Amino acid sequence: MADFTFFTQPMSRGQIVRWALQEAGADYETELVDLSNKPRGLLDVNPMAKVPVLVHHDGDHVHVVTECAAICHYLAETHPESGLLPERHEKADYFRWLFFAAGPLEQAVVAGAMGWEVPEERRGMAGFGSLDLTLDTLDQWLSSHDHACGARFTMADVYLGSQFIWGLRFGTIGERASFRAYVDRLTARERYREATQIDQKLIAAAQAG
Amino acid sequence: MADFTFFTQPMSRGQIVRWALQEAGADYETELVDLSNKPRGLLDVNPMAKVPVLVHHDGDHVHVVTECAAICHYLAETHPESGLLPERHEKADYFRWLFFAAGPLEQAVVAGAMGWEVPEERRGMAGFGSLDLTLDTLDQWLSSHDHACGARFTMADVYLGSQFIWGLRFGTIGERASFRAYVDRLTARERYREATQIDQKLIAAAQAG
Repeated sequence: MADFTFFTQPMSRGQIVRWALQEAGADYETELVDLSNKPRGLLDVNPMAKVPVLVHHDGDHVHVVTECAAICHYLAETHPESGLLPERHEKADYFRWLFFAAGPLEQAVVAGAMGWEVPEERRGMAGFGSLDLTLDTLDQWLSSHDHACGARFTMADVYLGSQFIWGLRFGTIGERASFRAYVDRLTARERYREATQIDQKLIAAAQAG
Repeated sequence: MADFTFFTQPMSRGQIVRWALQEAGADYETELVDLSNKPRGLLDVNPMAKVPVLVHHDGDHVHVVTECAAICHYLAETHPESGLLPERHEKADYFRWLFFAAGPLEQAVVAGAMGWEVPEERRGMAGFGSLDLTLDTLDQWLSSHDHACGARFTMADVYLGSQFIWGLRFGTIGERASFRAYVDRLTARERYREATQIDQKLIAAAQAG
């Protein structure tokens, strides 16, 4: 049995986790989930019945991780040799932008796509404020830093970068020079291309079948 | 100079970070921010101009952390002696629930409070699905585990627990036995009570002044 079981559907946020698995060099097997007929194995590990889910077979222990950002970071933690964890002076940036992407950015992008607006008097409650302010903050960072932690690629870029790869593709995040340059740097990575090819083959096979 | 500068406003999510600082036993000084007249020092470190913000003076380095959950985890990382970081077999639960609280739970609670609903056909885009499903998932966990990682309190409980402390208080999360018991366990902690007293005194002083 492989160390990790990866429950996914190739046309989902599971693509983010696939990229993280490839970057980490993880020993994993893929369990494709038919979202119209969810297998018992998935429901047993995730009552939300969502994919992706990562199951770690760690000796006598079985660990379940959900939430894309958590899975990405967990893979960095369990594969320290891959160099994807932050060093001491990178930790502040790493966790800041990882949680910024999983919290305010995700929330602002979804709200924007749904057409939801936060009334001015309730700005304090919605931490993201507005999609423009959230994107301005990231634009400022990415205009002066190549990656979440500065010069070096870390696992934070898999998650933060995926928001931009998907956002620019689907138009839920507007084009800006810093965002496009960041996406170009990331999608040129060998492990990103490997991951994409695996999911594209699975999508093609499902369509042919 | 203290190791950490904590920009906050006592009637804000800054209370979560105050609790984390007290649990970690951090050496910090508080910079109270007048939200109607934001100081240059805050804008320099956080273009979102939000509080809380944590600044870490680490020798020759100055690190900035924003996002409550990131700040909580960063304090656990920089104070390993406080025992708030997860052990090897606690990591999956720790990161799963920390990101679940910062992502789907936060998003579902805000959407619920704003009266936003996700149309059935777009459930795939909004990762939280619905507030009920999100809360059911946590109810199931907390009905069989005392803390995010099981038996032991970790930093994940400061952030996840704060969602329940605030949610039950303001009615944005409905009462359930497992949620109330979790809140009671956490608010009985000495460090929680210390933190609350500090912010309550600041609030009283502001009202008297």
